[in-house]
Amino acid sequence: MTHILIKLLSELTPLSEKEKFDIESSFPIESFEKGTFLLREGQVARNAYYIISGCVREYEINDGEEKTTAFYTENQSAVNFNSIAKQAPSEVNYICMEKTTLAILNTEKENKLYEKHPRFETFCRSGMEQMMGSQQEELIQTIVLKPEQRYKKLQQERPDLLNRVPQHQIASYLGIKPESLSRIRKRITKS
Amino acid sequence: MTHILIKLLSELTPLSEKEKFDIESSFPIESFEKGTFLLREGQVARNAYYIISGCVREYEINDGEEKTTAFYTENQSAVNFNSIAKQAPSEVNYICMEKTTLAILNTEKENKLYEKHPRFETFCRSGMEQMMGSQQEELIQTIVLKPEQRYKKLQQERPDLLNRVPQHQIASYLGIKPESLSRIRKRITKS
Repeated sequence: MTHILIKLLSELTPLSEKEKFDIESSFPIESFEKGTFLLREGQVARNAYYIISGCVREYEINDGEEKTTAFYTENQSAVNFNSIAKQAPSEVNYICMEKTTLAILNTEKENKLYEKHPRFETFCRSGMEQMMGSQQEELIQTIVLKPEQRYKKLQQERPDLLNRVPQHQIASYLGIKPESLSRIRKRITKS
Repeated sequence: MTHILIKLLSELTPLSEKEKFDIESSFPIESFEKGTFLLREGQVARNAYYIISGCVREYEINDGEEKTTAFYTENQSAVNFNSIAKQAPSEVNYICMEKTTLAILNTEKENKLYEKHPRFETFCRSGMEQMMGSQQEELIQTIVLKPEQRYKKLQQERPDLLNRVPQHQIASYLGIKPESLSRIRKRITKS
């Protein structure tokens, strides 16, 4: 099977055999069982993860309570930029919610690859701009939209997610209590 | 006066005269009066703005109401990544809250500069990683923290901001009504 990053980059530009080989050997693909932690609070993150299949939940512990801050699924990347850029201990945990297959992008190997093949850095920068865009949009929506509006958006944009993870984690992600989420769901079903 | 981007890059690496000249001629520094729009809803963003002095407010109109989603001040960048990356109409407005001086980073000129001086792209990528980190942290805090906790964080981390912009915009940014912000402020002053 073609390596996911070779597939993605090939859509943008023809790759040489050498480039393909270097991508494949830099960024291994691995599968992890449900319940595996990819990153724990307090660890310094050294990898970014591009998800091929499965689901990774990001959460932090606040006042003794688990707060879910993101769900990463197919074709999304789970990256703790703060921890990687500042080499600072992570404040969040990454846990696999299902058996999850992903490409592991180690920061050092990534930098070496850019030294060898500078044009990859341009693709990376452009990919990061898109990630920044999505993240910015999500921040704006989290500020602007009410929990019920955010739930409806999730229903539209990530309908699969709602069946893949427990409702109390969705509630936590929306910043509301599970009871409030039940009420929202009833209200939507009725209307 | 040394160009702000030359100053920032010189802290990382010695720059040649040619590099300095190209930075200076690519990214002009301009001042804008209070009330100037740098970007309006519906426009396609073509510039990023690095703020030297002043304050830019980001807001969108939701259900006929202005919702403030960010305040950018000294040494921060106001960039609508989604609009730039997808060449899509902006959903937000950028307005100068004070007389504001900034470096204008036009996307096309930026790309040309990277073609000429590829090593700048590495600095840009690393800068973007840091921006991603801050943004990620803010998203997490917006989900995890209660409005009162977010206000306290603002007090600690950006005390100047609270005196530079109207209270109802701070309230909007925290996702609460101005009355609730007054109550929070009274509670904090008492304790």
